[in-house]
Order: sequence, then structure tokens, then C-alpha cells
Amino acid sequence: MERLSDERAALVLEKALETTPSRRHVLDLDDFTRSEIDAVLRVADAMKEVLSRDIKKVPTLRGRVVATLFYEPSTRTRVSFEEAGKLLSAEVLNIASGGSSVEKGESLLNTALTLQAMGVDVIVVRHPRSGAPHFMARHLKEVRVVNAGDGLHAHPTQALLDLYTLRERLGSITGRKVVIVGDVLHSRVARSNIWGLTTMGADVTVCGPPTLLPLDMLRPAPEHGVPFENPLSTVRVETDLDRAVEGADVVMALRIQRERQKGGLLTSLREYARLYQVNERRLARAREGVVVMHPGPMNEGIEISSQVAHGARSLVEAQVSNGVAVRMALLYLLSTPRAWSEADG
Amino acid sequence: MERLSDERAALVLEKALETTPSRRHVLDLDDFTRSEIDAVLRVADAMKEVLSRDIKKVPTLRGRVVATLFYEPSTRTRVSFEEAGKLLSAEVLNIASGGSSVEKGESLLNTALTLQAMGVDVIVVRHPRSGAPHFMARHLKEVRVVNAGDGLHAHPTQALLDLYTLRERLGSITGRKVVIVGDVLHSRVARSNIWGLTTMGADVTVCGPPTLLPLDMLRPAPEHGVPFENPLSTVRVETDLDRAVEGADVVMALRIQRERQKGGLLTSLREYARLYQVNERRLARAREGVVVMHPGPMNEGIEISSQVAHGARSLVEAQVSNGVAVRMALLYLLSTPRAWSEADG
Amino acid sequence: MERLSDERAALVLEKALETTPSRRHVLDLDDFTRSEIDAVLRVADAMKEVLSRDIKKVPTLRGRVVATLFYEPSTRTRVSFEEAGKLLSAEVLNIASGGSSVEKGESLLNTALTLQAMGVDVIVVRHPRSGAPHFMARHLKEVRVVNAGDGLHAHPTQALLDLYTLRERLGSITGRKVVIVGDVLHSRVARSNIWGLTTMGADVTVCGPPTLLPLDMLRPAPEHGVPFENPLSTVRVETDLDRAVEGADVVMALRIQRERQKGGLLTSLREYARLYQVNERRLARAREGVVVMHPGPMNEGIEISSQVAHGARSLVEAQVSNGVAVRMALLYLLSTPRAWSEADG
Repeated sequence: MERLSDERAALVLEKALETTPSRRHVLDLDDFTRSEIDAVLRVADAMKEVLSRDIKKVPTLRGRVVATLFYEPSTRTRVSFEEAGKLLSAEVLNIASGGSSVEKGESLLNTALTLQAMGVDVIVVRHPRSGAPHFMARHLKEVRVVNAGDGLHAHPTQALLDLYTLRERLGSITGRKVVIVGDVLHSRVARSNIWGLTTMGADVTVCGPPTLLPLDMLRPAPEHGVPFENPLSTVRVETDLDRAVEGADVVMALRIQRERQKGGLLTSLREYARLYQVNERRLARAREGVVVMHPGPMNEGIEISSQVAHGARSLVEAQVSNGVAVRMALLYLLSTPRAWSEADG
Repeated sequence: MERLSDERAALVLEKALETTPSRRHVLDLDDFTRSEIDAVLRVADAMKEVLSRDIKKVPTLRGRVVATLFYEPSTRTRVSFEEAGKLLSAEVLNIASGGSSVEKGESLLNTALTLQAMGVDVIVVRHPRSGAPHFMARHLKEVRVVNAGDGLHAHPTQALLDLYTLRERLGSITGRKVVIVGDVLHSRVARSNIWGLTTMGADVTVCGPPTLLPLDMLRPAPEHGVPFENPLSTVRVETDLDRAVEGADVVMALRIQRERQKGGLLTSLREYARLYQVNERRLARAREGVVVMHPGPMNEGIEISSQVAHGARSLVEAQVSNGVAVRMALLYLLSTPRAWSEADG
Repeated sequence: MERLSDERAALVLEKALETTPSRRHVLDLDDFTRSEIDAVLRVADAMKEVLSRDIKKVPTLRGRVVATLFYEPSTRTRVSFEEAGKLLSAEVLNIASGGSSVEKGESLLNTALTLQAMGVDVIVVRHPRSGAPHFMARHLKEVRVVNAGDGLHAHPTQALLDLYTLRERLGSITGRKVVIVGDVLHSRVARSNIWGLTTMGADVTVCGPPTLLPLDMLRPAPEHGVPFENPLSTVRVETDLDRAVEGADVVMALRIQRERQKGGLLTSLREYARLYQVNERRLARAREGVVVMHPGPMNEGIEISSQVAHGARSLVEAQVSNGVAVRMALLYLLSTPRAWSEADG
């Protein structure tokens, strides 16, 4: 990657900002336009250059406060945001539901209002209830909210880092055949990626046991008032993984939740692995240069073979690396005064 | 608020420091004189100005180390101190009893001596045992101790931020009628506020079920060797909230602990809410411009109605905002070399 | 301690670096040569001078990222590393097994690879399984690993800080008689100290109940391919503490794990205290200026008397203080570009 001077890097950011529609929150990908996603990926490029430096820290967000508010455990997402914030010189406050007044039964709204009153500029929230970040955003006048995963609903920063990683590896996403395999029904990663990938022009197939595929994928959902076609209507559904990977450029394996077995949605992990594991044998049916993704943490030997997980086709580590850059880009875009002062997204 | 230049802000701090009696610790409000409280509030003004800046960070405590040592969970107090320390450029180390050698049964004294040996400059401690911060302070020669709540005893920084918030809203505290409602008997917030408010010349009434009011409030406690009148002798006690709020300028609701029911001190939360909830109907009996406070987290619908909690009379969010400024002021006053070198408080 | 200017301090570090064999990891003391230990202690001297300043922070590791990854709880070690990293201006990310994807069952390898992908420069790891840090080091191409305690195996930074503390107090370690008392069999602190102390020329005796002493101490272990004599062959074993302390310069008490009783290795804590407590009566048999060490946290009244723990002979607090300086030295040595670029240690 080209080594940018500080001045050059500042110019890139400046330029990206001018051409980026200002938005107050990152709640879902369903309200991101293609040009907005392009802008985020462009700023992430500049951030990735910062990360390649010997001193990988810039003063961009000095004196800003970012709170991570996690009602579900997660290492990789919390640490990725924490590192992103710190390398931009923001102060980062970590709040986890264990050992906090969450336990005293404080409402989500009051916790959010408290953080706002403390002068927190950005809240990065993960919550088991779908819509929790939207609820917070609706009630916070001064704080920017980033959804770090809400219930079964959305995980937009994961999808953005996946798009960044694909664009970096494949050059362009348009027209690429992407297969998402696993428990699509309960996956916020799948949901956000479907929106992101179709917005960027990819040709998406979802694949998994019928009990773990959303039925509404088979019919269009015109009631969504979004400015672009509802991607669910354009997604192909396939229950046979061998058929699904035929000609694929990208195979994205989802993490299987062992709890699904209890719910009767999954017969056995062994059976699941036999039918839906992403492994070398199956990838032989895909395109020559097929790449494999996984949002992590992986159950190796179940939804993905160890050989594939750590093999040359795997983008798993690139996804993690790019996650820091993409989250730096988002924190920067949300926290910059110009973005604040402009119209609401 | 007036925008101060860095030089001007430095002068304000300089001035405040000269006129502030240096003290080693903040353990309780019972040894704060009125002029000392005034000085803290004055420094907090300068800190609040810092918080209103676009880049709300100053290098004042660069290279100093603040440890938060919490033996009881708390989001708002820990995060408030953490943010205060970080915005002053101190390094902040968070230590919670879960997952620390607290679990290995290390004594409080040895934990404190360990932090002192590590070069920690200020320990902010919350502990379920009354007097724990005093005990630490007695054994630490080089560390400043701030009590962030000890047992049923004191929560001096909460009281100072309450005083700051009242002075900001009402101009002066002298002669104001303040009603503290709830479980006064078990409330360190109440105890510290009674000392602070009476020291500042307020006229304090405590109100609650007879089982939750301290009996010793009815008699003076001359054995206390403090340089000003024991406030307990001047506090009015009232078990009827309607009568208590008559003519009040301020109503402070305390958090009700659900555990009190088990102890038989409280018949039911519904009964409590009926008799002691701070709500619009009751506030109609108070002064026109009555304001309402709560240390948080609130049990909305029990000790305070949601309408009041989030209404125009509520100072709840101002309390939280000012908490950061007041804690910055205290960390600054305790950590500044001149304060260190002068006589013990 | 002499007050060094920044330039002078930089020169000391520069010099130390030139004469220090570059190494990628700190996994154990069994691969440290005497000159390498000397170099670490020399750099720690410079770091201790930094810690004595009013502003005890230097920009040395600005833009570097240090992760503490603790699979076992520990206040003192984690906080010591965190403070060391922060005072060198590194960004420190704390990851504890509670509330992280450790709970989701992610493998140690994948957690390590994830942190590497995030651009973490140094991982400080504590793990209940012996060899876990070595395993990580073997699979990480770009990250430096520091062992903060692995199973029953090693705790090299504890031993280095003990060596530093002894050298500081006694001038030289060569020829000193050091007695290590307690559960030597299960103590990583003992194991690392035995390597470190014998490498530095001390005369080591281990002492404890026969069930808690390693049998292999009685026979040499020539299969170890280390470049210097296996210290286990030179260590004296003694089950009578009164005899062991005779003529001792240093007595190091180990923490007794109450779990050992369940395993039948220990009859009772009272019995243990009677036979193996380090107390004034026993120390009377040692050299005049005998000093006492303990890695902490202490069970006062069991393996060490309170009088000794907090008495004039105790180096316990010096150990803690020096721990920060020694860890700063190690983070510095591992993170400096020159060290990176040179041959593997």
C-alpha cells in the first residue's frame, strides 16, 4: 500500500468527507446507498494506510469519547472498536453488562441518556434485542449510535468490513456470485451482508437446512420503504450446498449456534457438518479463485474445515484486519464536526 | 458558558488552588468546610468549560495514574471517574472485584499497598463496608483516596455534584428547602448530602417510612468533633411526603433497594410508591420552580414517576453531566503537586 | 536514584538495546543467558527512573498496541503490565476470559491469530495450561508474546522482577543463599526463579513438605538441551525450614493454594503454618540482613507472618514497584524496531 504523508492522508479524509452524505448513526445497512458504502470503503483505505505505519496512531479524534456498551459478550467486535477508537486518539470507555448497573435493572434508555449526559460522543452498542440501537438513536439528540450487532437483526459494521475485504481481494463486487451458508434465519451477519452485497451488485445465494432459512426470502417484501430494491426478492435460495457453490466467487460460512439443536432446528452437529461444512471437496465445484469468509469465532470442523479456515482461500484474517480500518472510518465519519452540523441522515 | 482560553483556564485553576485548603483525601463531606466546598465547585466550573469544548481534553494530569477499585458494581460512578481521569490525560486502571485477586482473598490493605507500590497516584474506591476508604487512607502514605461510596456511610462526590447542580440551577443553596425522600437510613447519598447541604446553609427535611429513617436524627450527636454544627441536629424529620414537600425548592428521591423488603423494613413496593413516590401530583404542593433530583439508577414508577424523571423539573441528567466536571475538579485538586506538599487535611 | 534527562535516558536505552540479544518472545527464563538478564535489569533501571518523575510517562511505544489476554484472574500482574504499557504510551487492550469469546469456545490459536490480524504488537498472556504461550508464539509471525504465567510451568516476568529487586537490595546475586519455601511442586514462580537465580549465580535451596517438592529435583535432567547447566541439578532440597534458613540471605515464601488440601497433599493449613511459615523466630537463624520476598497475594498468618510481611526485612512492596519497571523494560525491548528486525532469539 502506498505510504501517505500525514498531509496527504488528511486530504484523502477531507475529500471523502465532502462526498459522503453525513449521517448520524450506523444502525443497519438497509439505509446505506451504494455511494455511501463506497465512501466508507474509501475512508477505510486511508485508515488502513495509518494501520500500516510504524506509529499507527493519529490525533483525529482527540478529546472525543467513545463508549462500547455490550449486553452480549464478544471479544473481537468490542476489541476491534476499542482499538479503532484508541488509534484515532479517542478516549474509549468499555461498559459490559456484567458488573454494571445493567444488573441493577436500569433501563436501556436511562443508560443511554446517562452516557449522553456524560458527554459521550459515540455509543457502540451490542444488544440481544433486535432494534435496541434504533431505539437508543431515536432518543439521543447528541450521541451517535453504532450498531455492533442487535438480536437477529443487523450487524452493519461486519457487513461493511466484509464488503471492504471482498473489494480489496476481488477488485469489484458487482456481478460476483456470493454464497452465504448456514443458519441464515438467525444470523444478523447474513442479513446485513445480504443488504450490503446486493446494494453493491453481487448475486447472492443463501444456503442451509430448510429449518434455518427464512421463509420470507421466497417472496418479495414491497412494504419496506427503502430507496432501492428490497434485496430479499433478488436472493436465490438453495438447500443443497454442492449445487449452491457451483460457480461461486465467494463462500461465506456462518457460525452455527449450538443452542439451535435444543430448539429442534438442527438434528446434530455431525449431520450439519456432513451437509453444510465448507471444505476443500465442496470448494472444488466453485470458481478457480474462490475465497472463503467467516465472521468468527469459527467452529472448526463443523461449519468450516480447519484446512479451509487457515488455507490460502481464507479471508478470515483479512476480515479481522480490515475490521479495525472500517471501524476507524465509521468513527471518523460520525465524529467529524462537519458531519454533525449537516442534515440528519 | 464563557469560552476560556487555555491560559485563562489555567489561571482559574491556579487561583482556585491557592485558596483551597490542600487535602489528601476525599472520604466524607463531614470534614469539608463551606469555603472548601466553594473551592471545589469553582474548580468544577473551569472543568465544565473544558467539557464544553470541541476537544474536551487537557494535559493537566499527564503521567499520573488513577485506579478505580470497585468492590460493588456501578456503571455511572466508575465510568464518570474514568472519563474524568482520561479527559485530564491521566492513565486510568479499572479494577473490579470480579476477576481480580480480590477473589483470591487478598486483604483490602494489601491490595491498597500493592497499588501504592505500583505508583498509583489516586485510588477511587467503592466498598460495601462503611469506613473502608478511611482505613485505606490511614495506611497509604503516598496515595490519595477518593471515596466513591462506602457501605451505608458516605458518597461525598455524589453530594458535591448535587451541590454543584443545585447552585448552578438555583444560584444559591442558602435558605433553600430541600426534601430527601426514601430509605434515608441505608443511604450513603442521603448522609453525604445532609452534611453538604446543611454546610451550605440549606434547610433539610428527610422523609420516608419510619422503618427507613434513622432514629438518631431526632437527637444531636455532640460527640462528633467536627468544626461545625452536627447537621443531624438541624434536620427536620417527616413521615408524610405531602406535608414534607410543602414549600420545597428541591425534592431528592433516593433509590429504593428491593432487598429492604426481605428485611421486613418495607411492606411492598406498591405501598411504597403510593406513599412516597415523587410525582406531579405531589410536586404541586411544592414551590413553583421546584426541581427534582435522583442519584440514579432510577426505579421509574416506584420512587419517582417517569413523567417527573424525564420532565422539565428533573435535574437527573444535569447531575450526571456535572458529575464528570466535579470529579475532574477533585482529581485535579488531589493530584496537583502543591496540594501534595502542603499539610495533611 | 540519579535523575536522568530525557536524552540521557534515551542513550541508556539505546546502549542497552545494542548490547541486548534481540528476542521475539519472553516465554520462560530457561533460554535467558546471564548477559541477557543483565541487559533487562539495566533497561529496567532506566524505566525506574522514568517512574520516579513527576510526569511518569514517555512516548516510547506511541502507536503500539499491547493486549493482555488473561485466562486466569489476576489483579497485580494484569494491572502491572497495563500500567507499564500505558506509561510507555502504548494502547492497552484488556481481554479477560469472562465475558469474551473465550466463552464461545474459540480456540486459543484463533484468538491469537485474531489479535495478530488486528495489528496487536505484543500479547501478554496468562493461561492455566503449561505451554500455552509457547504454542501461541510458535504460530504468530508478527506478534511478540510475553508469558504472564502458564499453568505450573513458568512466570518469567515475576522472576525477572525478583532478580531486579534482589540486585537492587543486595548489590549482587552471585553466591547469595536463597531459600524458596512452600509448594515448589506446583509453583511457576518457583520454577522461573530457580532458573533465574542459578543463572545469576545464586545458591538455591527449596524447602517444603515432601508432597509439595518435585521429585526430579533430586536427579539431574541432562536431556534438557539448554546452553547452561540445568539448575535443577544444583538446587539443594530441604524439608526442614529451620535448617534451610540457616545462613540464608534471602527467603522467598510461596503462596499456598488452599486447593492442595483437597488433593490430600496438605494435611491442614495450621500444620503447614506451624512447619513452614516464614516468621521472625525462624528468620533469627538466617544471616543478619536477611530479606524476605513473596510474589503476592499473601495469605498472612499462613505462609508468612504479618509481622514479617510488613516488616523491615520485607521486599514485597519493592517487588511490586519493580514489577512495573521490569515490564516496561520488556515491552520496550520487544517492541523496538531494531529488536524486531534482528535474528530470532
